[in-house]
Amino acid sequence: MELRTETQNLLDMLSSNKKQLDKIVLDFLPKSAESAEIQLLYDMMKDYPSRGGKGLRGSLCILWCELFSGKKQNALVSAAALELFQNWILIHDDIEDGSDLRRGLPALHKKHGVELSINAGDALHGKMWELLLTNKGIVGADLTLKILSEFTSMLNETTEGQQIELSWTYLNNWDISEKDYLVMVTKKAAWYTCITPCRLGVLLSSVDRNDEGRLPTSTSKIMERIIDFGTNLGIAFQIVDDVLNLTADESKYGKEILGDLFEGKRTIMLIHLLDHLEKKRQAEVLEILSKQRSEKSADEIRRVFDLMKENGSIDYARGVASNHSRLAMESFDELTSEQSKMHPRISRNTRFLLEYLSSRDY
Amino acid sequence: MELRTETQNLLDMLSSNKKQLDKIVLDFLPKSAESAEIQLLYDMMKDYPSRGGKGLRGSLCILWCELFSGKKQNALVSAAALELFQNWILIHDDIEDGSDLRRGLPALHKKHGVELSINAGDALHGKMWELLLTNKGIVGADLTLKILSEFTSMLNETTEGQQIELSWTYLNNWDISEKDYLVMVTKKAAWYTCITPCRLGVLLSSVDRNDEGRLPTSTSKIMERIIDFGTNLGIAFQIVDDVLNLTADESKYGKEILGDLFEGKRTIMLIHLLDHLEKKRQAEVLEILSKQRSEKSADEIRRVFDLMKENGSIDYARGVASNHSRLAMESFDELTSEQSKMHPRISRNTRFLLEYLSSRDY
Repeated sequence: MELRTETQNLLDMLSSNKKQLDKIVLDFLPKSAESAEIQLLYDMMKDYPSRGGKGLRGSLCILWCELFSGKKQNALVSAAALELFQNWILIHDDIEDGSDLRRGLPALHKKHGVELSINAGDALHGKMWELLLTNKGIVGADLTLKILSEFTSMLNETTEGQQIELSWTYLNNWDISEKDYLVMVTKKAAWYTCITPCRLGVLLSSVDRNDEGRLPTSTSKIMERIIDFGTNLGIAFQIVDDVLNLTADESKYGKEILGDLFEGKRTIMLIHLLDHLEKKRQAEVLEILSKQRSEKSADEIRRVFDLMKENGSIDYARGVASNHSRLAMESFDELTSEQSKMHPRISRNTRFLLEYLSSRDY
Repeated sequence: MELRTETQNLLDMLSSNKKQLDKIVLDFLPKSAESAEIQLLYDMMKDYPSRGGKGLRGSLCILWCELFSGKKQNALVSAAALELFQNWILIHDDIEDGSDLRRGLPALHKKHGVELSINAGDALHGKMWELLLTNKGIVGADLTLKILSEFTSMLNETTEGQQIELSWTYLNNWDISEKDYLVMVTKKAAWYTCITPCRLGVLLSSVDRNDEGRLPTSTSKIMERIIDFGTNLGIAFQIVDDVLNLTADESKYGKEILGDLFEGKRTIMLIHLLDHLEKKRQAEVLEILSKQRSEKSADEIRRVFDLMKENGSIDYARGVASNHSRLAMESFDELTSEQSKMHPRISRNTRFLLEYLSSRDY
């Protein structure tokens, strides 16, 4: 009962933050155009940002800023830009991954074609940097540049992660170790979902504490240590997401269930399964997975899914996620022990959000 | 004879600038990766930047900086970032426009597929912002932010222009006036080819002259007036480019000759032609142009091209380009009359580059 109330409080806080961030994003995006063509661009740009979502990354950034005694007000623009980042890159990801659905609705390129959608993604990408430039009036020029630098690092990592995953599909490579997978997930998901939002929060908490653009040593040290913490959290987050793709209720999940298997996505479950099958079965599974998406039958996909259950691959994945989640929470407690004493309520909320991220159940 | 020497001098200067900018770009891009997958990304990122090109936009930026008594050294990073801008956006444009060739070689997506190429374009885009952040050590935090703001404006305009042009194709819209075309070209080409490079040059010339991040009024005024000048120059540039697509020597041009007709690209020649054909012929041409690229025969395309020649559409386009070029040169002389007295050699070089841009012949 008490847990349910805590969850409800957390969801309320997330939803209240999300509303604030949505407002910043949607107010910032251009609205009425001189021509029908540009109006379509503007409508496409605000499509994904209008589709809901939980705003987890933005809230992470805000909470870490507050936990380190910063003002929420200073973090809002950067938190909103994190949401913009996710939105523009998902437009491109959905094309690259051949995804048909996004948050329960047709992906943007399914509505408007690949050509216009690549361009709309680029336009939205530009708006992210433009929004970040407004930080100058809030946190000053020096910190604004440091924030921009966090975003370029995040983009470098994310595109590298996406490249690794796409290459596996493109080259039909199934010879992937768990270690390869963890490197990919760290780059593709951990940076933009966990590492950068938390680093930004700490960075933004340093407003008024920094001296001529230099960060206090403690801030730099914590930002450095967040990489390890966020890697563990991000890995747990992604594995949970991949498990949900196989097991969740489609109406709540917003994406196609078993879609990852149709897509041939390399997940830790699949790596575990291939490692534990005898040669003949392994060849059978690889033959199914290597087919074009449209050539895979529902029965074939169900067969792979059943083999995963039989071989304990899904339970194994849950265990790996849970280990990484535990490591992340231990780092969190260590990293923020002082701050948690000063701000017990914020610390509890943050802890709760982190647990939710790394083990959420729909 | 003397003209040929001047041309040679200009080309030498362009090529020397280009070498400097190439070095900045290629030194900045990541080289050796930990994995084969990321190595492929790095190789894809440096593919277009290694293909040559003239570096016209970077040189424009450098020359305007020098003309306004700025130091070339201060302009190099921003000029190199302009070249990076062109390279990442061309990766996406080539996918969006279905172009097979770029600078005489297969387009990136023809070599590595659409999925990896969208992602490589995004990664290169990120590197552009990262390179621009290094301006802080050269021109200070305030001017760095102003430069970034020039780049976001340029990206806004360019994606809007691209959207207009793509929408015409996507919706099979042929009801386009010359005015519609000029708006599209201004956004799609004039901003990134002319307006922003020149504005950046003037902005960068203000280093050490600005006071706490405020620009001298004269600098702001000139930057404002460059919009009009660069619009005229950019329109001339794009029309000349479109004419060359019909008439140039393929080996020098680096793109497919008549490719624009296969692509169904709306050009001023085509708008002129459709305006001047009787109903029946107009319907015939529209039927050809509305076909999918692969369904158009060489004979059909040749037929449209012949009609353009018969109806004086190509000469008309040359005339429009020449008018806009003249207007641009008049603005240039007016805008830079003082500076030209102070720096006659730089002024002559700039003038020569502008004339080359708006009437170049391969």
